[in-house]
Amino acid sequence: MPAFPAMPTRAGAGAAVAGAAVVAVLSATLVLYGPPLDAVLNRAFPLHTARSVTDMEAALQLVRNVVPPLAACKHKGQAGRIGVVGGCPEYTGAPYFAAISALKVGADLSHVFSTQDAAAVIKSYSPELIVHPVLDSPSAVQDVEKWLPRLHALVVGPGLGRDDVLLENVKGILEASKARGMPVVIDADGLWLVAQQPALIQGYRKAVLTPNHVEFSRLAEAVLGDPLDGGDRSRAVLRLSRALGNVTVVQKGEQDVISDGEQALTCSQEGSGRRCGGQGDLLSGSLGVLAHWALLAGPEKTSGSSPLLVAAFGACALTRQCARQAFQKHGRATTTTDMIREIGPAFSRLFETSAGADGGVAPTGELCL
Amino acid sequence: MPAFPAMPTRAGAGAAVAGAAVVAVLSATLVLYGPPLDAVLNRAFPLHTARSVTDMEAALQLVRNVVPPLAACKHKGQAGRIGVVGGCPEYTGAPYFAAISALKVGADLSHVFSTQDAAAVIKSYSPELIVHPVLDSPSAVQDVEKWLPRLHALVVGPGLGRDDVLLENVKGILEASKARGMPVVIDADGLWLVAQQPALIQGYRKAVLTPNHVEFSRLAEAVLGDPLDGGDRSRAVLRLSRALGNVTVVQKGEQDVISDGEQALTCSQEGSGRRCGGQGDLLSGSLGVLAHWALLAGPEKTSGSSPLLVAAFGACALTRQCARQAFQKHGRATTTTDMIREIGPAFSRLFETSAGADGGVAPTGELCL
Repeated sequence: MPAFPAMPTRAGAGAAVAGAAVVAVLSATLVLYGPPLDAVLNRAFPLHTARSVTDMEAALQLVRNVVPPLAACKHKGQAGRIGVVGGCPEYTGAPYFAAISALKVGADLSHVFSTQDAAAVIKSYSPELIVHPVLDSPSAVQDVEKWLPRLHALVVGPGLGRDDVLLENVKGILEASKARGMPVVIDADGLWLVAQQPALIQGYRKAVLTPNHVEFSRLAEAVLGDPLDGGDRSRAVLRLSRALGNVTVVQKGEQDVISDGEQALTCSQEGSGRRCGGQGDLLSGSLGVLAHWALLAGPEKTSGSSPLLVAAFGACALTRQCARQAFQKHGRATTTTDMIREIGPAFSRLFETSAGADGGVAPTGELCL
Repeated sequence: MPAFPAMPTRAGAGAAVAGAAVVAVLSATLVLYGPPLDAVLNRAFPLHTARSVTDMEAALQLVRNVVPPLAACKHKGQAGRIGVVGGCPEYTGAPYFAAISALKVGADLSHVFSTQDAAAVIKSYSPELIVHPVLDSPSAVQDVEKWLPRLHALVVGPGLGRDDVLLENVKGILEASKARGMPVVIDADGLWLVAQQPALIQGYRKAVLTPNHVEFSRLAEAVLGDPLDGGDRSRAVLRLSRALGNVTVVQKGEQDVISDGEQALTCSQEGSGRRCGGQGDLLSGSLGVLAHWALLAGPEKTSGSSPLLVAAFGACALTRQCARQAFQKHGRATTTTDMIREIGPAFSRLFETSAGADGGVAPTGELCL
């Protein structure tokens, strides 16, 4: 059993209690590629088997650790500048959902890179977004690439579609993002592209894939020659992540299963039975912000677990909590717009410490260095 | 110590108390360019050093003095017709935020001059705005110029971008506005233009620049060969303002520092730690209206201080109060749209006298002359 660092927290109360639980939850770190998969899996999923309130709470505490406090001395952009790549003649809602979710989780600026036609529509949904009508331009890759130095994370796929020209441009954008070491969340038809060309993200440990059931099977078939659609989900997700060289994989479902090829977590936060389109965009947009925050905080804030694993857990828990809150108000009529309205209260409920909730301005000092 | 005129007020109650404090706050009017900067600075910042509730209240009282009472006899347009120059293929939210903020502060009409593509999108955000799709037209300068006689103030820069053709057009628009003696608030990429060509506004005392940290450094580097990014912020802002020939400079930050090269004020109204994009547009749009009102009221209403200094203080205080109120409701999920919803209540709380708050219509008579 490997030794674990003490869990650093900025939340005073509850940290000690949560700390003990975190060791219980996440102490299953595995020796990379060492033991056979079956042996590993027998030890890897205390959360999967336990699914207790205590374990969920401990994992949520790790998310809290990476959420940056708000401080009066900070400047625009420091809490995150997120880019969403998607939006085409058919799909305009998805990139909007992802980008506005990033803002409401706490990013300072949210960009969308869409096709020309889609851009005006996406802009019209909200004046908060910066929408670049470039994705079908002959210079799309360069047009997006010049913005990358000003972005902290990229969400690729919401509303992308499967047009060959667009997918070729997205391939170039992914290569450019990898060259810069940017965290990249890939969803929807971004995953279709990855299933066609797994080498695109093979071994890139700052990538997070967020497949639903169908997308997961397609990926597993492409990478392992087996859709992995039966049996133990945690085992399947761990296998796919390993096969992709420890890319983080989030399999969305009744419960969300997350693995970086070393650990697997199950998020069983209560959600709703409503499955309207767009919920995955809320998840991917939120995850863009949380991935940036978690990588910035580093593994010392996540008790040695992968920051992207913790970020993904946070985004899953948040999305499910939004679904639950929206469903309580709107029932079967719930749409993703209703869920997005719940991001603020849900985030606050799950992740805010008293410092963040108290007027929004933490004491300055070291926060501002 | 120069003599000060008695502070004229239209608010009966509280005026006497506030009057004494105003003298304490603003009695540091300096002989123009007279004493060396250091000697001046030692006397110039009672507010900067004090930052007391009393001093803030005294400065807010000066803003109240310039807010025109509403009266049943007034006609459409008399409370202000504001123009915003900005909006391009990438940016459409910023000019909307500025223009709608001007309306919500109390302007009667709010115009936007944007590029053709951006105009339809900006219109879609709100039927309240008049949006002219002219900024990328070959006749852009003339197209805007013919509207200038019908406008009271111009806000230049929100969502402008850095396209050379647009910047050249904006240069022409600025020249035309100066020729008419119009107050001009310059923000965002309007400041980028000024940093390239400081002569554009050099010595134009009806200009107000509203740089954030990065924009301020760029301007200071261009004008003084020194980014002035360390040490005493009040001194830095005063220096830049002086070097520009007493153009009013508002350096936004943890506290907002304002100078017209003669005085410096610090606005420490409580805001929030949220730094989402668009807050600066709320400030510039509000400032467009307040600048018009303050110049109309004249220095006899501002205890001898520069009307634009007082207007800028008012816009800063209002923006921060909106941020605070929105944050109390929405926490980290706060966006600029949430802040704009707070303009009415925040303005009322900070600036409305009982006459203005009581049904909105003051007694007629001299108000209608």
